[in-house]
Amino acid sequence: MEKNSYFTWPIRVYYEDTDCAGIVYYANYLKYLERARTEWLRALGAGQQKLMTEEDGFLFVVIEVNIKYHRSSFLEDDLEVRSKVGEHRKATIVFEQEIYRGDEKIVTARVKCACLDVKTHKPKAMPEELLARMTNLDN
Amino acid sequence: MEKNSYFTWPIRVYYEDTDCAGIVYYANYLKYLERARTEWLRALGAGQQKLMTEEDGFLFVVIEVNIKYHRSSFLEDDLEVRSKVGEHRKATIVFEQEIYRGDEKIVTARVKCACLDVKTHKPKAMPEELLARMTNLDN
Amino acid sequence: MEKNSYFTWPIRVYYEDTDCAGIVYYANYLKYLERARTEWLRALGAGQQKLMTEEDGFLFVVIEVNIKYHRSSFLEDDLEVRSKVGEHRKATIVFEQEIYRGDEKIVTARVKCACLDVKTHKPKAMPEELLARMTNLDN
Amino acid sequence: MEKNSYFTWPIRVYYEDTDCAGIVYYANYLKYLERARTEWLRALGAGQQKLMTEEDGFLFVVIEVNIKYHRSSFLEDDLEVRSKVGEHRKATIVFEQEIYRGDEKIVTARVKCACLDVKTHKPKAMPEELLARMTNLDN
Repeated sequence: MEKNSYFTWPIRVYYEDTDCAGIVYYANYLKYLERARTEWLRALGAGQQKLMTEEDGFLFVVIEVNIKYHRSSFLEDDLEVRSKVGEHRKATIVFEQEIYRGDEKIVTARVKCACLDVKTHKPKAMPEELLARMTNLDN
Repeated sequence: MEKNSYFTWPIRVYYEDTDCAGIVYYANYLKYLERARTEWLRALGAGQQKLMTEEDGFLFVVIEVNIKYHRSSFLEDDLEVRSKVGEHRKATIVFEQEIYRGDEKIVTARVKCACLDVKTHKPKAMPEELLARMTNLDN
Repeated sequence: MEKNSYFTWPIRVYYEDTDCAGIVYYANYLKYLERARTEWLRALGAGQQKLMTEEDGFLFVVIEVNIKYHRSSFLEDDLEVRSKVGEHRKATIVFEQEIYRGDEKIVTARVKCACLDVKTHKPKAMPEELLARMTNLDN
Repeated sequence: MEKNSYFTWPIRVYYEDTDCAGIVYYANYLKYLERARTEWLRALGAGQQKLMTEEDGFLFVVIEVNIKYHRSSFLEDDLEVRSKVGEHRKATIVFEQEIYRGDEKIVTARVKCACLDVKTHKPKAMPEELLARMTNLDN
């Protein structure tokens, strides 16, 4: 990804994240990816608690993940999650996310979410303003 | 604990449970303890989904845990959780739980729960019949 | 998948697996998938502890996951993981895995693993006999 | 605890931490407590990777936890873990830890650790200098 074109969030690796092979357990990267998406929404004033309790609230539900594990990471590593928006339609959005340790790419992921009405759980269009802000990071 | 005086539930240790010190991560034993409590309630016909959706439903909320870690356990260990009821009052109950690997005691725990009304979240007396069945395992 | 052509493993959903949206948290299905792979290897006499400590030991490292979430699952659901081997080369193998609740498909996943030498961590061919047994489930 | 007499570490609650009762799952507070202990050691220049790989390395192993849950916490709560050293002997140390949300106390915990030699796994005295720095926070 090009600099300034993504949202970054730091992660530190703790004991809870590792397994007895000495590395971060493969499912736990999905937690890191979600923390980054959540923090991005918060940074845009759209915390999930807020989204879910608003009159016309919505929630994102993950419907597909493609993730490649390039390298292992280890206890006390300082990682960085980089996130941007890829394809998006009215009620689905793809987050393109990468995890780095310094210059080394650890993980590449593509996370597709459906946008659902918080009450009916039916597909719902994302607010255009929020989408505009997520796709114009450097403006 | 004496034989036949407790409810037993088997646990197998997977990668997800271990950490990079090569052993089961200390918080994960609390998951094992809860699986055993949940299965015990199910065995008595009182699954948590059922308890929570009944007209006069209640739920257990853990309010205190005392846990001693005697030995480590490892990937693919076959463990056994042994559970019985200790002190109990109208709206609180103590589960005395131990985790074994064969004859070796791994963990001793005392888990105190409050019994709450599922709607009001106020303290509520446990059904006497359920309590009677939990305290008379071998009858 | 056709019947008898895959390895099945049951999973029960506990509190630890769910999140505050009331459903199983998306990362936790990767735990279920791994439990099933681990149990399949055990059923074939190739437990991971054993594989890792043998003279010519190897370990599987996940290098890619593609997972689709079709439906949500909930507390106390009884799920079934169905696993079979897809593409395989000398030192990589794809597990095709699905998770069902009764007749409803919850998750479809494709998990690509590298087979590494336990000492050198370099790619290593899987034992042919093990592969043969995994690809001929109904023989 | 009195101000300036403890080490503080912030925690944000994510989806991964909550369960379907809508609150932080009881085992996950033990993760928060450990992150705080780890960060405290790091702040003192004694990161766990470093401790474990030094010539005369040691590691802390939790041998007992007493934890009281006073209140629930929720998605996106901002929590603070406060940690100080309680009783300590040559090779054991008690961490007294509390978790707050603003002025509300969520959790009180007492975590007893053994200090082990990283090679032999036998009890080992903590370095006096490290202990002195942990017990004199405001100097």
